[in-house]
Amino acid sequence: MKKLSFTIAGLAFLVAAASSLVQAQSAAPSSEAPRYVKGTNLVRPPDYREWVFISSGLGMDYNPTPNARESPSFGNVFVNPSSYRSFMQTGKWPDKTIFVLEFRNSDSEASINRSGRFQTSLAAVEAEVKDSRFPDGWAFFNLRGDSAEPMSAADSAPCIDCHTKNTAVERTFVQFYPTLLEVARRKGTLKPGF
Amino acid sequence: MKKLSFTIAGLAFLVAAASSLVQAQSAAPSSEAPRYVKGTNLVRPPDYREWVFISSGLGMDYNPTPNARESPSFGNVFVNPSSYRSFMQTGKWPDKTIFVLEFRNSDSEASINRSGRFQTSLAAVEAEVKDSRFPDGWAFFNLRGDSAEPMSAADSAPCIDCHTKNTAVERTFVQFYPTLLEVARRKGTLKPGF
Repeated sequence: MKKLSFTIAGLAFLVAAASSLVQAQSAAPSSEAPRYVKGTNLVRPPDYREWVFISSGLGMDYNPTPNARESPSFGNVFVNPSSYRSFMQTGKWPDKTIFVLEFRNSDSEASINRSGRFQTSLAAVEAEVKDSRFPDGWAFFNLRGDSAEPMSAADSAPCIDCHTKNTAVERTFVQFYPTLLEVARRKGTLKPGF
Repeated sequence: MKKLSFTIAGLAFLVAAASSLVQAQSAAPSSEAPRYVKGTNLVRPPDYREWVFISSGLGMDYNPTPNARESPSFGNVFVNPSSYRSFMQTGKWPDKTIFVLEFRNSDSEASINRSGRFQTSLAAVEAEVKDSRFPDGWAFFNLRGDSAEPMSAADSAPCIDCHTKNTAVERTFVQFYPTLLEVARRKGTLKPGF
């Protein structure tokens, strides 16, 4: 049988190349971690629609006197997959978690549909990020374009206030995410009162 | 520099081992393909909540005289990730595609919510599968337990009729899935009339 010769260096290269290929595919995709431009301007995650869907609501309003809405919007919440898996293990959110809240307009009585509502065009995209680079550890973004600066202190004050006082787990409304609520209950990470 | 010797067979083994490691991680996870017991009884995909979310609706009814519902249910639709990516490239569904339709009860005016509805407990899980093992190429399942037999010809007749006459792409209601609708329009896979 024909023999081939390799140097140690050549073998090391081959193993390193194979290993990096495997690592590249088993680690969380690099697109999952928050990407920023200009320090703290969040780049809209291009593939958030392939992230893990947490839940959706229709026409949810937190004001005591909600507006009557002719066409209420759906809110779909997505989280990056590696943070989701971490939550399922621990009931807590790791640093670098991104929540994308996508609002879609709704319609009814189209095609074969006779009642109820279904989702249509994109209305808005917002994000909440847990990242230690922010003084508070969390930040909110209105993702109107490809990237967005964090909401100003004045604009985000009511968000922070509500996401601190009324959330079931950390600064997230796990009480509205039924599959996560079960996990947080089991892991004992719900705030008192939930 | 110290030399090592390898036979061609040894090298081939090393390359094959590295290659299979890479393949195992890049191919669709084995849990994605439909699993059956007793030939055609579909096993409920354990991780469908991590699949790609297509859309959701609230209280959708296809009957001309819908029931008034005190507590309408949300319907969340998930598809296995590799089939989703294939659709985004082609506007068509590959063989072995699984759609999971999850129904959840809804609630309102809980916690800080004052109007609109959010999702709560699981109400039902159904599946539609495109698989050439079925005479028709497609099958419907009521996934009440860990696995389920295909719906009987009599029970599925109205499903098949509606999913043939009224669907925008193949046997799927892409007209209610806004992100897929755009793709099908671009790829020219919408049925006439859409």
